[in-house]
Amino acid sequence: MKKQTIKEVLEGYKKVLHHDITVYGWVRTFRANRFIALNDGSTINNLQIVVDFENFDQELISKISTASSLKVVGEVIESQGAGQAVEIIAKKIIILGDNFTEERDKTILQPKKHSLEVLREQAHLRFRTNLFGAVFRVRHAVSFAIHSFFNQNQFFYINTPIVTGADAEGAGEMFGVTNFDLNNIPRDEQGDIDFAQDFFGKKTNLTVSGQLEGETAAMGLGRIYTFGPTFRAENSNTTRHLAEFWMIEPEVAFNNLEDNIDLAEDFLKYVIQYVLDNCKDDLDFLDKRFAEEQKSKPEKERAKEGLIEKLENVIAKRFKRVSYTEAIEILLNSKENKKGKFAYPIEEWGADLQSEHERFLVEKHFECPVVLFDYPKEIKAFYMKLNDDNKTVAAMDVLFPGIGEIIGGSEREARLDVLKTKMAEMHVDEHELWWYLDTRRFGSVPHAGFGLGLERLVLFVTGMTNIRDVIPFPRTPKNAEF
Amino acid sequence: MKKQTIKEVLEGYKKVLHHDITVYGWVRTFRANRFIALNDGSTINNLQIVVDFENFDQELISKISTASSLKVVGEVIESQGAGQAVEIIAKKIIILGDNFTEERDKTILQPKKHSLEVLREQAHLRFRTNLFGAVFRVRHAVSFAIHSFFNQNQFFYINTPIVTGADAEGAGEMFGVTNFDLNNIPRDEQGDIDFAQDFFGKKTNLTVSGQLEGETAAMGLGRIYTFGPTFRAENSNTTRHLAEFWMIEPEVAFNNLEDNIDLAEDFLKYVIQYVLDNCKDDLDFLDKRFAEEQKSKPEKERAKEGLIEKLENVIAKRFKRVSYTEAIEILLNSKENKKGKFAYPIEEWGADLQSEHERFLVEKHFECPVVLFDYPKEIKAFYMKLNDDNKTVAAMDVLFPGIGEIIGGSEREARLDVLKTKMAEMHVDEHELWWYLDTRRFGSVPHAGFGLGLERLVLFVTGMTNIRDVIPFPRTPKNAEF
Repeated sequence: MKKQTIKEVLEGYKKVLHHDITVYGWVRTFRANRFIALNDGSTINNLQIVVDFENFDQELISKISTASSLKVVGEVIESQGAGQAVEIIAKKIIILGDNFTEERDKTILQPKKHSLEVLREQAHLRFRTNLFGAVFRVRHAVSFAIHSFFNQNQFFYINTPIVTGADAEGAGEMFGVTNFDLNNIPRDEQGDIDFAQDFFGKKTNLTVSGQLEGETAAMGLGRIYTFGPTFRAENSNTTRHLAEFWMIEPEVAFNNLEDNIDLAEDFLKYVIQYVLDNCKDDLDFLDKRFAEEQKSKPEKERAKEGLIEKLENVIAKRFKRVSYTEAIEILLNSKENKKGKFAYPIEEWGADLQSEHERFLVEKHFECPVVLFDYPKEIKAFYMKLNDDNKTVAAMDVLFPGIGEIIGGSEREARLDVLKTKMAEMHVDEHELWWYLDTRRFGSVPHAGFGLGLERLVLFVTGMTNIRDVIPFPRTPKNAEF
Repeated sequence: MKKQTIKEVLEGYKKVLHHDITVYGWVRTFRANRFIALNDGSTINNLQIVVDFENFDQELISKISTASSLKVVGEVIESQGAGQAVEIIAKKIIILGDNFTEERDKTILQPKKHSLEVLREQAHLRFRTNLFGAVFRVRHAVSFAIHSFFNQNQFFYINTPIVTGADAEGAGEMFGVTNFDLNNIPRDEQGDIDFAQDFFGKKTNLTVSGQLEGETAAMGLGRIYTFGPTFRAENSNTTRHLAEFWMIEPEVAFNNLEDNIDLAEDFLKYVIQYVLDNCKDDLDFLDKRFAEEQKSKPEKERAKEGLIEKLENVIAKRFKRVSYTEAIEILLNSKENKKGKFAYPIEEWGADLQSEHERFLVEKHFECPVVLFDYPKEIKAFYMKLNDDNKTVAAMDVLFPGIGEIIGGSEREARLDVLKTKMAEMHVDEHELWWYLDTRRFGSVPHAGFGLGLERLVLFVTGMTNIRDVIPFPRTPKNAEF
């Protein structure tokens, strides 16, 4: 790329000091007909352009306003003012594109704070705000760190299918995919819908997980990971649910549960360290915003740590590893449980843990990320390895402060006979999963993996509170705009 | 990751020579009850395990066969035999998983060549073959190189939506996405399907391109790229079409057509160089396979270059940049056209170029990759910038030997009034694309981008001929298995 970004100019300005350079960007503010804050999206920081209005056509100057896009040629000098090391003395200014004055006052483009809800409806414009610029640059860094971690560790990226023929995992309600004309759906002789005539020759859905296909790839390539969209047709209008979200699912042949926990811990710490190392300016901004937000909350609900502090603490400590059985003991004996503070009181071993219990363990009891393992088999999926106690499976959940479960995974059941029994017990169709069972037939191996919801991790790292604010174009009930 | 992969052992064996190590893998072959070729997917190369059968239980030895999975502890020594630098003298062998002898002779697991068609139906097992191991390791490398290139050049990864509300671009037939019970579709008072009651409150489809959303992101973040699945509901049973495939779409604010061509050329060369640098063993294997395949063809149809040679040549030469108008001149004056050799003869300026014309230009006339630009506006999409001649648009296609178009892109129409006129002419609904038009309202800027089909590039790099063989789980008409 031959063009210099504003990030490059600001970080490497010593190389261009007292030279003329060309920069491009959008006007964030234009103060006193003299100081333009120019931003090109490469960084949260603006480049100050100094305009001596005597040197410019008055008509040109009058057209420059917030959101105008400019090409500026000028000399780089050390800044006289506070707040920036460097500024540009403009010699030539070209307005690049249309900016219609009659619409100039449209609220969204004013240099003031907008509600996150308003910006969500203007998804195409929120990219120009400081906040969403920071969020989506961090999201990029998280994504790149994920690819880098796996590549360094000899994992291969596998694209599992988006359109699938079966709801085998039962992970949630699925969207149908069809090429039928809904006004004229073909029927067979019995009067049933004739899916054999649909595009794929059968009933198809959007995937809820790439895990099962990922496992089959790991059975040949050893270490694989997926990174792709997954879907849930659940009518959940909450700050934690999206109908379309991105999942990362590594799967490793020859790994057992402990290896899997080690991998999850190394992985999360790598990604968070990467963001700390590479997104300083954006994190500083988000850290300040987070602190501001805490102030407006009642004292009891405020976070104990600042955003950056929280990220540093996650890296500093070893995650606490606790069996489900131990966790139930702790919860049963807790003041909170005894005094009836939990909405769902814990009564006995076997209970499914709620978010309130997970957060109690992480935020109050251990005060660090917690990995729970060996869950009762009844509350976990069919593909998890049955432990020798015949009561628990080799499942693991990583719990994070403020967010609860961030990773869920397990060692997989590698024994064909045990897997078949589990599938029968849990009413999973063997015939639909013939190919999955085949991987246990021909040189089955112990293997393990987990799933991470990308948006959950980005929420954690950015300190945002609504999951719709960390994905560029959120898909939720009654909303598929853009 | 604490476990050593076979790749690590083979590449770094000097560190572990005469030490005991532990390795894991699947048996590729077991010769003379003595030599096991062990593979763990990390590399195409096998590790030789030497078994002195006198030291092992005969029953254990008898269970080891092709596809068995093993854990082996043994001493690393320099190999006595040809073909490998190093081997392991086994001290302990553990069979890790079930391998059912009664099914052992299932054709697919025999150590022989299988047809690609058979393997496609056994997608879960083809990962264990040399060929598909190589293909999917290369696919990983291509993907990682793509992310690395964009990250280095300050692009941000943007996830554009998979489920969308509109077929605005008109790039192809779309799959419907619905949560309706197809046996009981709600109707409104007029008797029409009441999409307001569907999950998203409107008719939705699977995306055909993330470009328009990508443009809106670039209008704030400057440089972005997408990397995600796209869909076409076209009933094309060919070696070049998939119903579900992965696209990469960069978009850059302030770039014009020439910048865009430069970016495409730098990008392709970076990715191909990365694969040459990082996939030597797999490429050597694919190169040999490619050469074998050529031998079976009639001499006229054989490729002029070997696979690796072809990749090196793409990097060595500057791509030839030719306007559409020049290309038409060349084609009109070609012997091929005059003698009626083209299935679609070129008669005049304005003709849409077919694959045969593209390949003539690349393979016969210029003998190097070609970038065609400035196409007639009638044969290109509505969002491309109208040139001053009022006849052509600032479109560009990158054409590669053997494959034709590998990249298609353009400078975008940044002028609101021109864009609106174009949309009206081409019957694109303004109201559906209000948000797209908005980006031309508030600080519109020149910008440009392109699209690359990942599978096309992997086809080119691996020398495979059927696009179904370069994606792990192909989706095609009447096929959504796995």
